[in-house]
Amino acid sequence: MVVIPVEELRELGIKIFKAQGASEEHARFLVETLVEANLTGHDSHGVHYYVMYSQRIEEGHIKVDEEPVVVKESPSSAFIDGRWTFGQVTAMKVAETAVLKAREHMVAAVGAYNCNHIGRIGYYTEWAAKHDIIANFYVNVGHPAVSVHNGLGKAFGTNPFSVSVPTGSDTPFLVDYATSVVAAGKVSVARAKKSRIPRHWVRDRYGRVTDDPNATLEGGWLLPFGDYKGQGLQMASELLGAVLTGSRTGLSGVTTPPSPNGVFMMAVNPEAFVGLDEFKGRTAELLDRVKALPAVAGERVMVPGEPEKESKERRLREGIPVPDSTWDAIRALCGRLGVEVK
Amino acid sequence: MVVIPVEELRELGIKIFKAQGASEEHARFLVETLVEANLTGHDSHGVHYYVMYSQRIEEGHIKVDEEPVVVKESPSSAFIDGRWTFGQVTAMKVAETAVLKAREHMVAAVGAYNCNHIGRIGYYTEWAAKHDIIANFYVNVGHPAVSVHNGLGKAFGTNPFSVSVPTGSDTPFLVDYATSVVAAGKVSVARAKKSRIPRHWVRDRYGRVTDDPNATLEGGWLLPFGDYKGQGLQMASELLGAVLTGSRTGLSGVTTPPSPNGVFMMAVNPEAFVGLDEFKGRTAELLDRVKALPAVAGERVMVPGEPEKESKERRLREGIPVPDSTWDAIRALCGRLGVEVK
Repeated sequence: MVVIPVEELRELGIKIFKAQGASEEHARFLVETLVEANLTGHDSHGVHYYVMYSQRIEEGHIKVDEEPVVVKESPSSAFIDGRWTFGQVTAMKVAETAVLKAREHMVAAVGAYNCNHIGRIGYYTEWAAKHDIIANFYVNVGHPAVSVHNGLGKAFGTNPFSVSVPTGSDTPFLVDYATSVVAAGKVSVARAKKSRIPRHWVRDRYGRVTDDPNATLEGGWLLPFGDYKGQGLQMASELLGAVLTGSRTGLSGVTTPPSPNGVFMMAVNPEAFVGLDEFKGRTAELLDRVKALPAVAGERVMVPGEPEKESKERRLREGIPVPDSTWDAIRALCGRLGVEVK
Repeated sequence: MVVIPVEELRELGIKIFKAQGASEEHARFLVETLVEANLTGHDSHGVHYYVMYSQRIEEGHIKVDEEPVVVKESPSSAFIDGRWTFGQVTAMKVAETAVLKAREHMVAAVGAYNCNHIGRIGYYTEWAAKHDIIANFYVNVGHPAVSVHNGLGKAFGTNPFSVSVPTGSDTPFLVDYATSVVAAGKVSVARAKKSRIPRHWVRDRYGRVTDDPNATLEGGWLLPFGDYKGQGLQMASELLGAVLTGSRTGLSGVTTPPSPNGVFMMAVNPEAFVGLDEFKGRTAELLDRVKALPAVAGERVMVPGEPEKESKERRLREGIPVPDSTWDAIRALCGRLGVEVK
């Protein structure tokens, strides 16, 4: 493990994507979202994608010259063709469009298709909340990895779900999670550490309970969180993220391009209800009360979004830990692209 | 247990509420939602409320003469004062308003406050879906019964969440659940049967793991489903259902009126995206594929909403089983109101 200062990781990333034809603006934004994922502690969505996205550019899946375009619109809705540019660029277009519309018309729904991997979806919902708009993302991943409840075999992607609201205080409210028990990245981390995993995370290829993190590489699958309740949210993300937007579903059998996202966002302006100031004030008060609740011995009560905030404060000071294998791969990529590494 | 024909339960309910001053229209609709809860297998939200709502009318919490009114409006949003009429009447006004707006303007968000208990929320989302509009409800219950993840003590209500979409086939898609591991009604059922409960449902008043269904009567509490992930949805329902609408939160300390709901609905017209026909066609195809997935031995793969559909088909034929104690209470109520029971 090496620890890299944030600014160094950021500059390196921008150079990597510009060297492959991305505009300064796209490269800067893409790298911002990936570094933010590491900062907030979600390394599974972080700078290791410098390498994977570069491969996808090379293979023609990510089209660096393209821009997302709105193909259908009403005052409160927009339907966006991502034209296979960086998924992050498309997702940000979704969020920006929804926030602008919700500011003017109180409510908006925006969807996108032809969209590459958008990374950590909390980035976009939190951005909306910081702009005083309530945001709810339902996203599908067109690459199956998770069974349905009681099902055998991979049915859907890790189909993330996110809600963020303006809080008017330092405490964020950011729900942002895979609808599987854990993200696939957490199984990879256990694999790298050669440790066992809890027995409710995955099933092996025969559908058996297992604590072996290799199971998902050998035909096994992740489970939806919370049994049938998690399956409900997993399928809602599939129907809104993929079916409503015409994106690829997990059960389609199609595997190219890798890991596309179907993106659906709803945005709400608190001014349509109690008003922004009252909403923020009462939200801040509620979150403070939750944080002050007594906890089970040895545990903490947290508000969704607090762990991310704490990680970010720490890593901005201390730098971002990057596994040796990831750092080696990034340096090798830089070598091929003629990008100098300090 | 007695088994009562559906039509008899319905007519009795209408007479009960009309005898207490409700209009024919309100009484008929209220009873329709309660009987539908029994039909779909959710007895915890069914006709035993004939008695409890009657008590709330008598105590002045439910105001039978009132109608919900829109107090703030835009083409895509409405904010409704329920004026403490029957919660079901207010929730239906929310759903109808949102569907009308989403039909015309593609997207809508509607919230309500001063709202009594609205019953089973899947009733309203499924109604919207049957009218070709995608519906998402976030509802708070202003009566705390559930802790937060890792927290000690009751923080929030069972805060239900629901999503329903038009399917274009006999298979519904209806996510509708409490954000606790189970609804409080399931603990009551175990108590009545003198059976133990699974050890991940509730904690006793000291925060200890327990399988005793009496624990929630003696200071214990329900747990959120799916650990911190369920807490995220529980708190999203609190922020959207209560804080955004100015309704009572679970942490307010206020206990009167009993069990109010803060209601928030988002409605989306598929015509803003792939179009209604394509959405329904692709949804039907996806649900069929899910139903055809292989299952774990001894289990079934189900689509959210299927158990309700099966229960309804059975109970329409066979009648609705009502516990003796509930039936006795309904008959006693009828006696007091001068309503004749067959």
